[in-house]
Amino acid sequence: MTCTPSPPIITLLTDFGTQDAYVGALKGALLTHCPHALLVDLSHDIPPQDVAAAAFVLWSGSRWFPPGTFHLPVVDPGVGTARRILVATLDGHHFIAPDNGLLTWVLRGAHDRSTYALRCTPNQLAASSDTFQARDLMAAALARWARGIPPPTAPLSEPPVELQLAQAERCGEVLAGTVIHLDRFGNCITNITRAACERLAAGGPLKVIIGSKEIRGLRRAYGEAAPGELLALINSVDLLEIAVAEDSAAIKLGLTPGTPVQVRSLK
Amino acid sequence: MTCTPSPPIITLLTDFGTQDAYVGALKGALLTHCPHALLVDLSHDIPPQDVAAAAFVLWSGSRWFPPGTFHLPVVDPGVGTARRILVATLDGHHFIAPDNGLLTWVLRGAHDRSTYALRCTPNQLAASSDTFQARDLMAAALARWARGIPPPTAPLSEPPVELQLAQAERCGEVLAGTVIHLDRFGNCITNITRAACERLAAGGPLKVIIGSKEIRGLRRAYGEAAPGELLALINSVDLLEIAVAEDSAAIKLGLTPGTPVQVRSLK
Amino acid sequence: MTCTPSPPIITLLTDFGTQDAYVGALKGALLTHCPHALLVDLSHDIPPQDVAAAAFVLWSGSRWFPPGTFHLPVVDPGVGTARRILVATLDGHHFIAPDNGLLTWVLRGAHDRSTYALRCTPNQLAASSDTFQARDLMAAALARWARGIPPPTAPLSEPPVELQLAQAERCGEVLAGTVIHLDRFGNCITNITRAACERLAAGGPLKVIIGSKEIRGLRRAYGEAAPGELLALINSVDLLEIAVAEDSAAIKLGLTPGTPVQVRSLK
Repeated sequence: MTCTPSPPIITLLTDFGTQDAYVGALKGALLTHCPHALLVDLSHDIPPQDVAAAAFVLWSGSRWFPPGTFHLPVVDPGVGTARRILVATLDGHHFIAPDNGLLTWVLRGAHDRSTYALRCTPNQLAASSDTFQARDLMAAALARWARGIPPPTAPLSEPPVELQLAQAERCGEVLAGTVIHLDRFGNCITNITRAACERLAAGGPLKVIIGSKEIRGLRRAYGEAAPGELLALINSVDLLEIAVAEDSAAIKLGLTPGTPVQVRSLK
Repeated sequence: MTCTPSPPIITLLTDFGTQDAYVGALKGALLTHCPHALLVDLSHDIPPQDVAAAAFVLWSGSRWFPPGTFHLPVVDPGVGTARRILVATLDGHHFIAPDNGLLTWVLRGAHDRSTYALRCTPNQLAASSDTFQARDLMAAALARWARGIPPPTAPLSEPPVELQLAQAERCGEVLAGTVIHLDRFGNCITNITRAACERLAAGGPLKVIIGSKEIRGLRRAYGEAAPGELLALINSVDLLEIAVAEDSAAIKLGLTPGTPVQVRSLK
Repeated sequence: MTCTPSPPIITLLTDFGTQDAYVGALKGALLTHCPHALLVDLSHDIPPQDVAAAAFVLWSGSRWFPPGTFHLPVVDPGVGTARRILVATLDGHHFIAPDNGLLTWVLRGAHDRSTYALRCTPNQLAASSDTFQARDLMAAALARWARGIPPPTAPLSEPPVELQLAQAERCGEVLAGTVIHLDRFGNCITNITRAACERLAAGGPLKVIIGSKEIRGLRRAYGEAAPGELLALINSVDLLEIAVAEDSAAIKLGLTPGTPVQVRSLK
């Protein structure tokens, strides 16, 4: 159709919400420095300051973009303090982000990684807002990178900050994990992986225990259960998920992040 | 300004909400297969699983795009089951969508239509997530189509699923319809068309009856009524609408989809 | 990377919300007339009919885009009445907007300005929806402008409508202003400028009084305060802001637009 090269893709993920001008300002700064960028919103509805939620959404969303994509995740309660700004390339994806754990999930999933600190001159720091460095420092650096000018970096004296993520564990014949994310539908995503489930039962049937409920067997799809029925399945990012068909498992069962979940063989 | 061809336009309409990574994943998949596409959100705030609301929003939004636009509407409670995936070209607009009634309004409005089933190989089905076929099957097929590679299709053994839409009816000198959609402003859109109103009164004045309220005459614009005043008008998609100037008719009158509405000549 | 000219940027700012088809229809109309435009959402979550909120968001967002950007702000309770449609170029930014005060903040901030009325033919008016002139008149005119065809204009017989904005005032050694905007985080933005604060204390320390609270000294960044601590700072658009670190000042202090704020020298 066209023989011009594709525009560079830049994704945005923030806790800015959509009622104010912050997202617009960020996009204005990006387009000032890279006018032909293709801007894509991952989400701006991360709960305020919820770095853990953003880290999960960043991992589950960014991975579907082609290598060479640029990502600007910004949940940044430490803006203007001594917290570093990271410059990372992970499996061919480029990130500039505050060093507060936002990259935890993508770092753990990456095979090839290089991480640096963004180097800012005193003049750049003085000219930037202490409350909106994403607009004045990160967007400019990322957009110039998207235009082909790599950001100035310094080696990291310490590794990137990582969140302490609750890990699912296997104890004998039991997989013990927790709910880690509630989605818009009220589906409850856990930290128990498809691979762990398959190892537990060698492909045999499983049961899932959550609170006083026991779910016998995994479904393939929501529509295999009757509307209103509780079910468990392996979801689209290969994690165990508890759902209620055409309804909210989070509301119906009162589940929140941190709720314990167990998986056992159905024998 | 530029002599390169315009990028293909792809619109998205989902019930995914904007707090999770689902919309981002969908866009990543689209851009992986068509890196120069121009992606446009119609809405991601369709109530969960509300195929009827999505069908109306798809019709009222998609028609303003130029012919040749590609549309990806996804409200898909039956994902992963035997429900078909439709491939349709309607008056020059291209759609890939689950076959669950989502296309009802656009099918009824179309003069030229061709509809097929998307043909997926067993390998494609096995490699795709059973809970997110929009990302793994539909987005890939639509994006390749936008790049010029038509999707593999099969004839439909049965016509596309259509929703049973409540139809306005004329009984003698009365037009009887219902509220079908509440918008963000609390305006109540009905299934009574401009044409039906004009035929009823031969262009003469009308009255609208809703609950215990009678609205005498149609206004042209919201601003012709005083703030807080109840009014009726023909809206921007040529349907009769009940509104309260600078306020919410839905809240002030307790209206919901399904509320009966009558139109009579004012004599 | 590419030698084709950058696509024209068009920003959108509305009170349409994101659940209906209105934003999609507007974008469809824009792309019909300028298929290669780069569309950017400033916000669609302005409270319904809140021209004042939109005027502030337009100013604080649009200024970060490069000169030559086109802006379509639409909060338009008077649509279809005699209210004029403005065509303005302010410091190199192009605007088409209803003449109801939406441009108040950008007009006041502009050094170079030219303002006209959009001239519509009787045929254009008859063919457009009286309830959605943004889609049928403004989008078409702005998109054609973005393609290089200036809109037909007429001189303004009267200057553009401007909102009466509450102004901060200096009374002796006191700066008296008000809260003008609550953001997503519950931060309370005032109409007291950085320059006014600096003049008051000649760069010396300040205190901020709001209700029964006194905040001693300004912080540079949110993260300089402990989580939950009340603080004041100069924000990213150079206005005094009251915040609670990692929490909502609006909720914790019960602040709303209009709440009085005083600044005094800390001596």
